[in-house]
Amino acid sequence: MDNFTFYSPTEFVFGKETENDCGRYILKHGGSKALIHYGSGSAVRSGLISRVQASLEKYGVQYVTLGGVKPNPRDTLVYEGIELCRKEHVDFILSVGGGSCIDSSKAIAAGALYDGDFWDFYSGKSRIERALPIGTVLTIAAAGSEGSGSSVITKEDGMLKRSTGSDLIRPRFSVLDPELTFTLPAYQTACGATDIMAHVFERYFTNTKEVEITDRLCEAVLLTMIKETPRVIKQPDDYGARANIMWAGTVAHNDIVGVGRSQDWNSHGLEHELSGLYDCAHGAGLAVIMPAWMEYVYKHDVMRFVKAAVRVWGCDPDFDDPEQTALEGIKRFRRFLHSIGMPINFAELGAKKEDIPVLVKKYGLADGGTTGGFMPLNNEDITNIYTIAANAEIEL
Amino acid sequence: MDNFTFYSPTEFVFGKETENDCGRYILKHGGSKALIHYGSGSAVRSGLISRVQASLEKYGVQYVTLGGVKPNPRDTLVYEGIELCRKEHVDFILSVGGGSCIDSSKAIAAGALYDGDFWDFYSGKSRIERALPIGTVLTIAAAGSEGSGSSVITKEDGMLKRSTGSDLIRPRFSVLDPELTFTLPAYQTACGATDIMAHVFERYFTNTKEVEITDRLCEAVLLTMIKETPRVIKQPDDYGARANIMWAGTVAHNDIVGVGRSQDWNSHGLEHELSGLYDCAHGAGLAVIMPAWMEYVYKHDVMRFVKAAVRVWGCDPDFDDPEQTALEGIKRFRRFLHSIGMPINFAELGAKKEDIPVLVKKYGLADGGTTGGFMPLNNEDITNIYTIAANAEIEL
Repeated sequence: MDNFTFYSPTEFVFGKETENDCGRYILKHGGSKALIHYGSGSAVRSGLISRVQASLEKYGVQYVTLGGVKPNPRDTLVYEGIELCRKEHVDFILSVGGGSCIDSSKAIAAGALYDGDFWDFYSGKSRIERALPIGTVLTIAAAGSEGSGSSVITKEDGMLKRSTGSDLIRPRFSVLDPELTFTLPAYQTACGATDIMAHVFERYFTNTKEVEITDRLCEAVLLTMIKETPRVIKQPDDYGARANIMWAGTVAHNDIVGVGRSQDWNSHGLEHELSGLYDCAHGAGLAVIMPAWMEYVYKHDVMRFVKAAVRVWGCDPDFDDPEQTALEGIKRFRRFLHSIGMPINFAELGAKKEDIPVLVKKYGLADGGTTGGFMPLNNEDITNIYTIAANAEIEL
Repeated sequence: MDNFTFYSPTEFVFGKETENDCGRYILKHGGSKALIHYGSGSAVRSGLISRVQASLEKYGVQYVTLGGVKPNPRDTLVYEGIELCRKEHVDFILSVGGGSCIDSSKAIAAGALYDGDFWDFYSGKSRIERALPIGTVLTIAAAGSEGSGSSVITKEDGMLKRSTGSDLIRPRFSVLDPELTFTLPAYQTACGATDIMAHVFERYFTNTKEVEITDRLCEAVLLTMIKETPRVIKQPDDYGARANIMWAGTVAHNDIVGVGRSQDWNSHGLEHELSGLYDCAHGAGLAVIMPAWMEYVYKHDVMRFVKAAVRVWGCDPDFDDPEQTALEGIKRFRRFLHSIGMPINFAELGAKKEDIPVLVKKYGLADGGTTGGFMPLNNEDITNIYTIAANAEIEL
C-alpha cells in the first residue's frame, strides 16, 4: 500500500425528502445568498426547484437562479454564472442536478473569486486558491461529483473536455434523496450505473501490491451495482434499489475505495474524446470503451483480472488456464452492460470507426508519450483500443 | 435503507514516517500550543514521542506532555489533563497512542472548555458544546477512535464505564503509520483485530431492509481482517498486512459501513461490564461475548446469519437446513478468534461464572427494560448470553 491522504469533509444528508432541509444546511455552512444552479427544465417541471426555493425562503436564505446546464457542461454557461455571482454578491452555490450541474457549479465557485479566466484551472495554467462554498441536491447517481473535489468542463470552442481538482471545491454538504431519481429514464439510469462501475474499475486495476482492503471495498461497490441496477431498470421507483445505487455512487468516487494505490483512468481519458466529439452520454461512452480497454490490457496482470472475474463476476476459476477466466470476466461485464441497455460498440453509440485517427489526435498524446496508471498506453495502443471498441460484439 | 447523515471530516494521513509531519498538521488545523497525551512508556522508549516532539519543534508548535493513559482510560487522568490544559493555555490536543489514549484526549478536549465536571458528558447530564481541536498519531489498529466522534471513559470510583459522542470531538487529523504497530505483542494485535471485526458485526446485524451496499462494505472489511490478521500474528513486521488492517480499522468505525441501518451494540455493552470488572482487554472480552451473543440471537433472523456464514466465512449453504449454515458461520468465527490467540470463554479471559449476577446488575437494565438494536434483550437474555460465553468451547 502506498502512502496517502484521505480527506472527505462533505456532510452527506441522505434519504427521503431531505431536499426540504437544504436551506438549513446552507445557513449552517455560512451562506446567506445562494445561486441555485440547475440543468434541464425537468427539475423545474417536477417541482423540485420550487421545493428547494421554499426551503431557502423558510430559512431566510436569499437566492438567484441559473438553469440550462447541459450534459458535458460548457464553459459558456460557467462565464454566465460567474458574472451573475459577482453582480448579485452571491456567497454560496447550490447545485440542483447531476454531475454536469455540480461540475459547472464548481467551476463557477472557483471562477467567481478569481481575477483571471476560470479556464486557467482546467488548462493547468493556474491552481484554485479560493472558491465559494458549494452544496448539492443530487438528481442522478453517477458522477460522484457530490463527494469529490474534481470537475470536468467542455470548452465549446473545439469541444475540448478538461478537468481540474481541489479540496476547495468539495461540496460542504450534499443532499441525496433517492426518490429524486425515480423519474430518470432507463437509459440515463444505466449510464449512471456504468459511470459508477467505471469509477471503481479505474481504481481496481492497479500495480500497487498489498491492497486487500481497497480491493474488497471496490468489489463491494461493484457487487452492489450488479445486484441493484437491473432492479431499477425494471422498476424505476424501487426505493431500496435506488438508495443502494445512490450511496454506492458516492462511495465509488470519494476515494475511500481507491486510496493508497495507483489508479488507471485511461478509460475515462479515452471516453472523454468520444463524448467530446459526439456529445454522447459519458456512461454510454464508458460502456463501449471499458471492456475494450480490459481486453487490450489484461495480459499486463492476468491474475488481477482473474480476481475480478471470480470475486465480482462469479466466474469459476479455471486453474489450468487462468487467462480464460480473465476473459470470461470481461465478457460478463460486457453482457451486463448490454443487459441494462448500454451500447457496446461504436455503431450503437453513434460513433464512427473512420474517426479513430481524429479521436487519437484530439487525445493529444505526444509521439512516444504514454498515459495511464495501470498499463501505460501510447498512440498505437489507444488506436487499438478504439478499434476493439468500434468492432465489439456480445459473445454468448 | 433509513435516512441518515454521514460526516467524517477527519484528514487521514496514512503511511510510512507520516508521524514526522504532525507538527505541520497541527499548524494547519490552527494549533500553536499542544498537549501531547500518551500512554505507556513504550511510546517514549521507542523514540516515537521524541520524533513527535521534533516535528512540533520544527514547525514552531509549543507543547506540554502528559503520559500514563491506561487501557480502559480513567477519569482521574482526564481531570489532570484538563487542569494542565487550562494552566498552560493549551489550544490543541495531540494524542499519541491507541483508542484509550484518543478517548482520554477527547474527554480532556471537551472538559477543558467546560465549566462543570467533564463526567457530565458521560453520565448524560450535559452535551458537548465546545472542545479543543484534536489530532492523533495512532499506535494500534483497533478502536477506530481516530476517525470517530465517540469516547469511552472509566470512572475509577466503582469502575463505571460510560461513553459520549459529538462531532466536536472528532479528530481534525489522524496520522496512521502502520510501522508504529510492528512492535505490538501478538495478543494486543489480536485484541485490536477482534475489536475491528466487532465494530463491523455490530452494524452488520440489523433489522433494516435493502442495505446491500453497506452489507457488502461490512463484508469487505471482515474478509480483509480474516485474510490479514493471521499474517501479522505470524510476521509482526509485515508492512502490507499491517497497513491493510490499519485502514480497515478506520473504515470499520467511521460509520461508512454502517449508515442508513439499525445497529446492535449489545456485544459492546455486555463486554464493557467484563472489562470494567476485570480490567481485561476490550478485544479479548469481545472475543468471548460476541460469538455467544450470536448463538443466542441468530434465530431472530436466520437468513442474515446465513448471509454472513456464506459471504464472510465461506460456508457452503445448506439449503435444506439453513440454521446449520448459520451456526457453522458462528463456529468458524469462534475458531478464527481462537486461532489468533483470543480467549473464547470466561476461564480463558479470567472472568468468573459466579460473577454473572454482578455483571448483569452493573449493566443496570431496569426490570422489564430491553437493550440493543437487533434483538432487544432483557436481564434474563443478558444472563443467558453471559452463561453461554462462560461455558463456550471450540467445536471442531
